[in-house]
Amino acid sequence: MKSTTTKGSNAYAAACPTRVVLDRIADKWAVLILGLLQEEPIRFNRLRKQIEGISQKMLSQTLKKLERDGLVGRKAIPTVPVTVEYSITPLGRTLSAMLDGLRVWAETHIEKVLIAQKRYDSGSRGSR
Amino acid sequence: MKSTTTKGSNAYAAACPTRVVLDRIADKWAVLILGLLQEEPIRFNRLRKQIEGISQKMLSQTLKKLERDGLVGRKAIPTVPVTVEYSITPLGRTLSAMLDGLRVWAETHIEKVLIAQKRYDSGSRGSR
Repeated sequence: MKSTTTKGSNAYAAACPTRVVLDRIADKWAVLILGLLQEEPIRFNRLRKQIEGISQKMLSQTLKKLERDGLVGRKAIPTVPVTVEYSITPLGRTLSAMLDGLRVWAETHIEKVLIAQKRYDSGSRGSR
Repeated sequence: MKSTTTKGSNAYAAACPTRVVLDRIADKWAVLILGLLQEEPIRFNRLRKQIEGISQKMLSQTLKKLERDGLVGRKAIPTVPVTVEYSITPLGRTLSAMLDGLRVWAETHIEKVLIAQKRYDSGSRGSR
């Protein structure tokens, strides 16, 4: 099968750990967070402000998962109160270019998708 | 902001429809389905067999969303009983190459991610 790499990992197999990673990186919030961090390290509060609509809890959870996966680094700066800064790791950087593509695809093709949705919803796609 | 395209779409804005599309395409099952369909049209039951662990309901829902977005086409073949075949659309094809990259990234870097997870879980990443 095409999807099998030389290392034998296969995202189509349920038991393959690749499936877990795919689930993690195929995540709207991860895409947006890594997209910002690839430019510069950013503090928690600024991340939250730049990504409209993300809750404090969701941002915190996603950052924790990304840190656990080795994609994002976390640095506590001993100010009063402590500020926490996040940065992208070399491993995260290998991923972020690809995620960029995904975000840009969404931004570029949104109009075509909206047209398709309208056509679908109007029922002109034929009977089921 | 870097993520703004010439058309003014911006996935970082909560109200931008791009956000919805990003959520759709940043989806484990969509990645796996489009990865198979880009090679050839496939019937529902064969898709289900090839993607281990996907339920009938989840496959059906994901295909319906992909069809609504104009990424996948659906053809009912008048056999007895009716068989339904899914194929990738030209719009879907512009997306699938990028999604390939995502899947291959997961398959290629899985070992590094697992090592990072072990290190994180053993607590050697410093105190919080």
